[in-house]
Amino acid sequence: GVEKKILVIPGDGIGQEVTAWGQKVLTTIAANFNHTFTFEEGLMGHVAIEATGDPLPDETLQKARSADAILFGAIGHAKYDNDPTLKVRPEQGLLKIRKELGLYANLRPIKLFDELLEASSIKPEILRGADILFFRELTGDVYFGEKKRTEDRNTASDLMIYHRYEVERIARKAYEAARTRRSKLCSVDKANVLEASRLWREVVQEIAKEYPDVETEHMFIDNAAMQLIKDPKRFDVVLTGNLFGDILTDEASQIAGSMGMLASASVGDQVGFYEPIHGSAHDIAGKGIANPLASILSAALMLDISFGLKMESQRVIKAVEATLRQGYRTMDIANKHTVNDFIMGTDAMGAKVLENLN
Amino acid sequence: GVEKKILVIPGDGIGQEVTAWGQKVLTTIAANFNHTFTFEEGLMGHVAIEATGDPLPDETLQKARSADAILFGAIGHAKYDNDPTLKVRPEQGLLKIRKELGLYANLRPIKLFDELLEASSIKPEILRGADILFFRELTGDVYFGEKKRTEDRNTASDLMIYHRYEVERIARKAYEAARTRRSKLCSVDKANVLEASRLWREVVQEIAKEYPDVETEHMFIDNAAMQLIKDPKRFDVVLTGNLFGDILTDEASQIAGSMGMLASASVGDQVGFYEPIHGSAHDIAGKGIANPLASILSAALMLDISFGLKMESQRVIKAVEATLRQGYRTMDIANKHTVNDFIMGTDAMGAKVLENLN
Ligand SMILES: CC(C)[C@H](C(=O)O)[C@@H](O)C(=O)O
Ligand SMILES: CC(C)[C@H](C(=O)O)[C@@H](O)C(=O)O
Repeated sequence: GVEKKILVIPGDGIGQEVTAWGQKVLTTIAANFNHTFTFEEGLMGHVAIEATGDPLPDETLQKARSADAILFGAIGHAKYDNDPTLKVRPEQGLLKIRKELGLYANLRPIKLFDELLEASSIKPEILRGADILFFRELTGDVYFGEKKRTEDRNTASDLMIYHRYEVERIARKAYEAARTRRSKLCSVDKANVLEASRLWREVVQEIAKEYPDVETEHMFIDNAAMQLIKDPKRFDVVLTGNLFGDILTDEASQIAGSMGMLASASVGDQVGFYEPIHGSAHDIAGKGIANPLASILSAALMLDISFGLKMESQRVIKAVEATLRQGYRTMDIANKHTVNDFIMGTDAMGAKVLENLN
Repeated sequence: GVEKKILVIPGDGIGQEVTAWGQKVLTTIAANFNHTFTFEEGLMGHVAIEATGDPLPDETLQKARSADAILFGAIGHAKYDNDPTLKVRPEQGLLKIRKELGLYANLRPIKLFDELLEASSIKPEILRGADILFFRELTGDVYFGEKKRTEDRNTASDLMIYHRYEVERIARKAYEAARTRRSKLCSVDKANVLEASRLWREVVQEIAKEYPDVETEHMFIDNAAMQLIKDPKRFDVVLTGNLFGDILTDEASQIAGSMGMLASASVGDQVGFYEPIHGSAHDIAGKGIANPLASILSAALMLDISFGLKMESQRVIKAVEATLRQGYRTMDIANKHTVNDFIMGTDAMGAKVLENLN
């Protein structure tokens, strides 16, 4: 068996409820497969501001640097959403850890479990067979460019900026992944209006020449936002910037039935960082009804990508499938038109997956 | 009857094919209702670059300033999309005319004709009753902020910038419209990350106080991109910036069955500018299969908003409805599962609408 040190950062809102289940799944896998996973916990986000004044305390960052992988929950709090003038904000913690750990590639696989074909607002015949892997650039773009507010507070700006090397490195990762899949890559930008997008397109056109076996397509973000719903099956690997990736992957959650099903892996040069795509969801936080499957599937991605434990990762995915097949559903994936679903809360659902792991 | 001067700018791609039908509908309405509409034509986009070297020739701008309303088609050409290094680009014409004419508010109504309930990739029960009016800010944001490319060409940037007055004026327009509808307004931003969005949210929160009878909600763009597909009926008026509005409205086209059904009105301090949401669509340009209804519905918006001719505007919408009810469809709105549709090209479809106007 392998020995791994995992940092768990539950964060805010439903992150506190679901991340425990990602961790329990990892513990069970370790026991069943004779691995040794040791866990530490770290603070980040609103909870970290409350405890230390800092959305990303140094201690958390130190722990992150010495971990083999990180399991993260969610970040954000209504207090800050309602008061845009607050200077210290939970999201700064997440943005800083992404930057500090060099997590420049955010992989977001979108795949519908057959059992959830009816849970989506999109027609089953449009969805069946859709399987998309997003590569969202994660440490550049308007997220990290200089922010300014004039002294009279009447003008505000953010710099949308990309450097050639930032586009190159994620493009290569996306092309490599496309080769292991259906060998199609769609790069999304707004090159008809934005200079940063024109650089993006130029660089992707260059890198594309290194991968003549992969079919490359360039699409404007507005068109992509439409095509994703109109015909999701046309996409294989989608490569895009930080902001457009944020928007498209949330939208794509409807292809998977619910945001509560979607995991992501952020990788770069060092440690891997695993998190659900969903946010802190303050509207349902504390109610015990959040879907734990995105956290559990994030743990599965960790096993595969950071630890190379493919069999163990598949085992987790199979347990999730089995749980869905048995008819167990959290609210977000319940099908209002079937009576065969057993609707349950976070903990009951998590427990069912654990049972199915054994 | 009224006397109006209308500038017609067909532009590029399918703009050349569909705009003629918007114009013919206006001519028919003038004849039937005893109005006098005189038409001029103007060049813009790729066709203008080819003819004059300039995507927006001064002559077109002069004509625009002296017109009572403008009917526009589409802009863009594959040549420029494939070569991001070209300096003179068709889209510059559209961006410049929006800025020069002060067209800061782009209204995009999204409403599904009952007849097209089955044409969408979204389930009919999710769509039925959806009725959204987007207010997209059109002369600010990252579209118009300073663009830079370093001399080594390895770094590119665009400034995402908003001024208080820009947010105020469109917010007021959106709130006024909400009052005439279901009195709900959702403002979309990314205030958890972007300073420009935090200004946006602050200003909307202030303006909201002037409209206590309108229910205000603030939503992050990623969440909005998801909610739009998950539950489009939750939205009434949606207020957002230039970039987010571009993305969300294209996405929302799936609620209306097809992009080919969607019209828009750009208004500000002077003349109104009417255009389909769809682009130049070079993949189908020249084939005579584009849907002329978006241009025809843009003409209907012109009659209503610029000329105050509500009855005439309704008459056009009714003619479109009648045409759909008779089973006539262009390819984009054909229902693959019915045999009752008569699928036809641009001109046959346009002619059916004209018949139904009489
Ligand atoms: C919480 C927020 C800063 C974050 C982002 O925009 O990147 C989230 O939406 C995500 O997608 O991970
Ligand atoms: C053609 C392009 C510049 C334009 C835009 O992005 O504004 C178009 O997509 C639109 O929505 O009107």
